Amino acid sequence: MISVEEARKIIAAEVRDFGVTNQALPKSLSRVLREDILTDRRLPPYDRVTMDGIAISYGRSVAKAVLRLPIKGVAPAGSPQLQLTDPTSCIEAMTGAILPTGTDTVIRYEDLKIDENFATILTNNINKGQNIHYAGEDRIAGELVAKKGTLIRQAEIGVAASCGYHHLAVSQLPSCVIVSTGDELVNVEDTPAPHQIRRSNVHMINASLSRYHIDAHLSHINDDLDTLGDVLSQHLEIYDFIILSGGVSMGKFDYLPQVFEELGVKKLFHRIKQRPGKPFWFGKTAAGKIVFALPGNPVSSFMCTHRYIIPWLEGSLQLQHADEEYAVLSVDLPFKPDLTFYPIVSLHHSSDGIQLARPVNNNGSGDFVSLTAGDAFLELPRGTDMYKAHKAYRVIRYRY
Amino acid sequence: MISVEEARKIIAAEVRDFGVTNQALPKSLSRVLREDILTDRRLPPYDRVTMDGIAISYGRSVAKAVLRLPIKGVAPAGSPQLQLTDPTSCIEAMTGAILPTGTDTVIRYEDLKIDENFATILTNNINKGQNIHYAGEDRIAGELVAKKGTLIRQAEIGVAASCGYHHLAVSQLPSCVIVSTGDELVNVEDTPAPHQIRRSNVHMINASLSRYHIDAHLSHINDDLDTLGDVLSQHLEIYDFIILSGGVSMGKFDYLPQVFEELGVKKLFHRIKQRPGKPFWFGKTAAGKIVFALPGNPVSSFMCTHRYIIPWLEGSLQLQHADEEYAVLSVDLPFKPDLTFYPIVSLHHSSDGIQLARPVNNNGSGDFVSLTAGDAFLELPRGTDMYKAHKAYRVIRYRY
Repeated sequence: MISVEEARKIIAAEVRDFGVTNQALPKSLSRVLREDILTDRRLPPYDRVTMDGIAISYGRSVAKAVLRLPIKGVAPAGSPQLQLTDPTSCIEAMTGAILPTGTDTVIRYEDLKIDENFATILTNNINKGQNIHYAGEDRIAGELVAKKGTLIRQAEIGVAASCGYHHLAVSQLPSCVIVSTGDELVNVEDTPAPHQIRRSNVHMINASLSRYHIDAHLSHINDDLDTLGDVLSQHLEIYDFIILSGGVSMGKFDYLPQVFEELGVKKLFHRIKQRPGKPFWFGKTAAGKIVFALPGNPVSSFMCTHRYIIPWLEGSLQLQHADEEYAVLSVDLPFKPDLTFYPIVSLHHSSDGIQLARPVNNNGSGDFVSLTAGDAFLELPRGTDMYKAHKAYRVIRYRY
Repeated sequence: MISVEEARKIIAAEVRDFGVTNQALPKSLSRVLREDILTDRRLPPYDRVTMDGIAISYGRSVAKAVLRLPIKGVAPAGSPQLQLTDPTSCIEAMTGAILPTGTDTVIRYEDLKIDENFATILTNNINKGQNIHYAGEDRIAGELVAKKGTLIRQAEIGVAASCGYHHLAVSQLPSCVIVSTGDELVNVEDTPAPHQIRRSNVHMINASLSRYHIDAHLSHINDDLDTLGDVLSQHLEIYDFIILSGGVSMGKFDYLPQVFEELGVKKLFHRIKQRPGKPFWFGKTAAGKIVFALPGNPVSSFMCTHRYIIPWLEGSLQLQHADEEYAVLSVDLPFKPDLTFYPIVSLHHSSDGIQLARPVNNNGSGDFVSLTAGDAFLELPRGTDMYKAHKAYRVIRYRY
């Protein structure tokens, strides 16, 4: 049995780059960016008017107390640049327009009176250069605006669009099958006999992976040594990684470790000093296929998905990691076993900026309904039998 | 010009229920649940063995110091209930199995020696009833496990699957068109002339709505009074709500307020005491179609989307609201105008559980590239010209 930290390291060493693919911009949301996005020209690309009003030559009008100016034209956004030839006149200029040559200052309509073809300036409070967003003020041409390894969100879509990226290089998605094992399981559509339950783990795990656009194949294999061997051997041919739930405990029909050995899947670890999720088995084939064999208990398999599989997936997609998240435990929490403890918690934001974690009432790793009352697991390290209220611990979030 | 709070109330009054539809379970992720999910039977449904080992009658074996027990059978998970007829014997029982009648306690393999057909108990530390998850211990039959109004996430998928819901009632999605206006705009694929820029707002707004599965139609209309009227009138026929960007400021070609009047769209407000986003126009038609006309500046339209449109959408989808989120401002932030101020901030979790908000360097509402460096807007209320470091303010998050 190994520690959580050892397990994390062993899994991190198996991160693999599944390559890069090209995706149309709108479809690249929530994918991992694999190229740097650079500005194709200055931002803004031209001296941009930021208020609707008039563009003037400050030195030749305001500075000389010329406050009633003939209007010599209109510069709408989207029209080629105009020129102010008489510097004691003005051009009406709209937000987003390119600043007319010969002008250096914009006065907004709120500070003007417009009559006939004249604009009269009503304020003394004018600064030379005001209401202009200068070309290149935000970014020069060729400047980095979104980095390789970023999870593409709305802002990245916006800058990519603006810089002319109608396609983006993003991480290729590894293929995945999620396999339930256990003769007690029936399909969601079926009415279970008294000794049966419906499959739910595979659906929960699949939903967890869908945040990264992974659309896993779902499969079920009964507790039969030959069938397990046959089907898993096919799965190992087809898929980049396999997630199993059930079949790795001490039971007589927990055949998986034996089946993996027969199929040449190398065990990298079996069992972690944690609760829930102790029986977790992890391995790989010579061809580099990855096998996560999770305990069958729903809370265990869900916790292991979020604590181990998602970080492996994020690593494999080359996602640059965000900060770790922390929350303050709301109550003293006793826990005797020498295991890293992952209680289900609900998260609350207090108005003083503190994130609070309240443990959810829970009857153990089979009580997965309690997951609906929570948002995350808290990671409580070994080395104490009492986790103290008001201390902060790491958050493994499953609800966003 | 109205306050942020007034604007929020006026928009909240226009929340509309767009109805309910049925969705296959795997497709219901990220939709809003519109029925209560109830257990169809007790959870667990039977007295469930939670450790692999033997099931015994405590009173007739351990309590009487009978520690070597003949094994009379094996109870795998998924098999009908067995019966222990001789209470001084035992049945091997696997995790997930239904507890055999005549037994009341499970001893795990780690505390046993199994040889031939006998199990010898190696520990003194046995409690009657241990290692059993009792029927109904988590939930009784017909108990509420996920509430109407919940955003369906992985945990809800899991409990729904387990309770036999292969379809779920979810909120119907309103149809939406996002319209850019402005003659300076060209498509992402195009090379802009010096006085032009590419369309990016509509893509950013669309990406923001996609969190709720809204897949908006994107449209562009040039600054021409007749075209605006014609196209918008068609859009108002087809779509439940319209988002526009641009055309609501003081400019000569900001025709939208006039066009809305001609089309019978009733103005509910125009202009909010906020920065960015002051020129925001909001209205509705007699038929109840909703019009959000946002300023054309990218940071403004993005802020208004997250501060106003998303809450309206969440309300209309009947989503029960989560707590508000807060973060502590990292530096003193001066701001003179009497406007609610929404700076772009990056969020950081300190290891003591505090969420910190660091303002992102920004050149004003045109500098949308700075959005990629941030995670959220901070809502800084009017009534001061200096927001103090170490104080917590409300977070309007756009990155999850």
